[in-house]
Amino acid sequence: MSISIERAWAALSEMDNVLVLTHAVPDGDAIGSLFALYLALKKMGKRVFVHTDRVPALMGYAVVPEAYGNGEPDYVVTVDVGDKKLLQKEDRERYGDRVDLNIDHHGTNVMFAKETYVDPSASAASEALFDIFTYGGLELDASIAACLYTGVSTDTGCFRYANVTPKTLRVTACLLETGIDAAGLNTLLFETKTRPYVRFERAAMNALKVSADGKIALMVITQDMYRDAGIDEADTQGINALPRTIEGVLAGLTLKEKENGVFHASVRTKPPLIASDICAVFGGGGHRYAAGCEFGTDLEEAKTKLLCEVRKAIDAIPEQ
Amino acid sequence: MSISIERAWAALSEMDNVLVLTHAVPDGDAIGSLFALYLALKKMGKRVFVHTDRVPALMGYAVVPEAYGNGEPDYVVTVDVGDKKLLQKEDRERYGDRVDLNIDHHGTNVMFAKETYVDPSASAASEALFDIFTYGGLELDASIAACLYTGVSTDTGCFRYANVTPKTLRVTACLLETGIDAAGLNTLLFETKTRPYVRFERAAMNALKVSADGKIALMVITQDMYRDAGIDEADTQGINALPRTIEGVLAGLTLKEKENGVFHASVRTKPPLIASDICAVFGGGGHRYAAGCEFGTDLEEAKTKLLCEVRKAIDAIPEQ
Repeated sequence: MSISIERAWAALSEMDNVLVLTHAVPDGDAIGSLFALYLALKKMGKRVFVHTDRVPALMGYAVVPEAYGNGEPDYVVTVDVGDKKLLQKEDRERYGDRVDLNIDHHGTNVMFAKETYVDPSASAASEALFDIFTYGGLELDASIAACLYTGVSTDTGCFRYANVTPKTLRVTACLLETGIDAAGLNTLLFETKTRPYVRFERAAMNALKVSADGKIALMVITQDMYRDAGIDEADTQGINALPRTIEGVLAGLTLKEKENGVFHASVRTKPPLIASDICAVFGGGGHRYAAGCEFGTDLEEAKTKLLCEVRKAIDAIPEQ
Repeated sequence: MSISIERAWAALSEMDNVLVLTHAVPDGDAIGSLFALYLALKKMGKRVFVHTDRVPALMGYAVVPEAYGNGEPDYVVTVDVGDKKLLQKEDRERYGDRVDLNIDHHGTNVMFAKETYVDPSASAASEALFDIFTYGGLELDASIAACLYTGVSTDTGCFRYANVTPKTLRVTACLLETGIDAAGLNTLLFETKTRPYVRFERAAMNALKVSADGKIALMVITQDMYRDAGIDEADTQGINALPRTIEGVLAGLTLKEKENGVFHASVRTKPPLIASDICAVFGGGGHRYAAGCEFGTDLEEAKTKLLCEVRKAIDAIPEQ
């Protein structure tokens, strides 16, 4: 069970010499909540440092270089981590079993820490942190607010997704009132593409094929495409969203060649088609409308098997 | 000078047999505020009807079919119209000089109506309408809220731009509380592309050329590209944003062949480069970082003239 917000604030207040961690391959909410908590604990007069394995290409502004200290912490806090197995390998091995406090917003949190504050109604871990800071009366400055804004805006797709509640918007209004340049942050987070990404996206769009009367869109991504574009595979996650954006498409499929030759399928669907059911046939899983699975075969066989299963699922939709 | 919010509400309350109009080639705020005001006046027990020349491909849900009445109105109200010359031709000729009330948010409003309520701090005409409805105590239902949401979200680029204020977010929180499916609306407004648009965008991306050490990105759009993609030119406005999204690009240029053979240039820049200065050289103009101009020459000459002027402007930037 989640601890109360009172207890979460009290726990933070009691700590000193704190290490803050987040999940591996961190996204905007991980980076935002990590550095927001770092700055807040600093402001509370604590000794504090952070570890993180990488920072997404355009999120450098959130990073506080001197936050990367080292040494042995007395307390370990994690943010935006639903399960200790999501920690980066080294962090997991050193600290996975001794996390004092975990602050999160995933309904699926497995409560691996000594104490867990989890609010599944929060759009982002950063929104949960805002609540704790506000409860404790911590005055938010623009640096902390910019980190929290990064978390909320990236986890909500810039306020597009169903996890945006009226409270999310009111919290964001308070963040804007600290004087942050939200539009400037959004330009970086949502409107700027690196040149390698533009080259990669062009190649991906050229590889897009629509079939089944416009109901299926399939994109095949090969290792050659990463190489030709000069891009790190980890910076191309967003491309999976592309095939489903086409009007009339019920199943947006991305088949990605991994370094070991295995093909990973990302399956995104629109109702009534269930992505996780399709992926379950191949031993995969995920969310209702966004799931994944793997194929240890060559590309043609992976394509045929996946398309065949998707067509079966589409044919099984009752006529309206 | 703008009338007060009290007077705006009183003016709406006094009217009956009202025609509501908006600007030509309406965008989301035009369509949203048009139908929101239609529904609100209906709810207030008025006879009311609307005119509009077209509705963007994915915005049909906001349209109330029976709103398109005809006949002779006793009152004419316009929404989101900064100048009567922006009205669609027929509306302008029939009603341009007899608009009783204009509700707007453009700081540049020329006050062409008998009474004008304009709030330049509002992100959208829909936000100004929300304020008037709230002042009057009109209870917002989900249909009105969905229209207002459409206006606010499209005019702010889904809450990305600098016109989002803390108040904009608090207004949007109230709209969500009526129970609208904001995430579903956003999927339509921001994540769905028609198949012709996907074909068009692919061709446009393939036509993108970066020069001047990555500081200039130029895209040439021809009439053939519209024809090949099977798309209406009016449904391709969004493409102008593409060249400037590339990291490091200071000038994102789009040269579009018009039906009469003239080339229209869209110039989007990042600070310190001023788009309106560049376009002024060719008799054009616009905003500081988004402006336009025209070339009555062939493509090669238009390209050369524009690129030459942009390079000059870039070379004139002081070294930092």
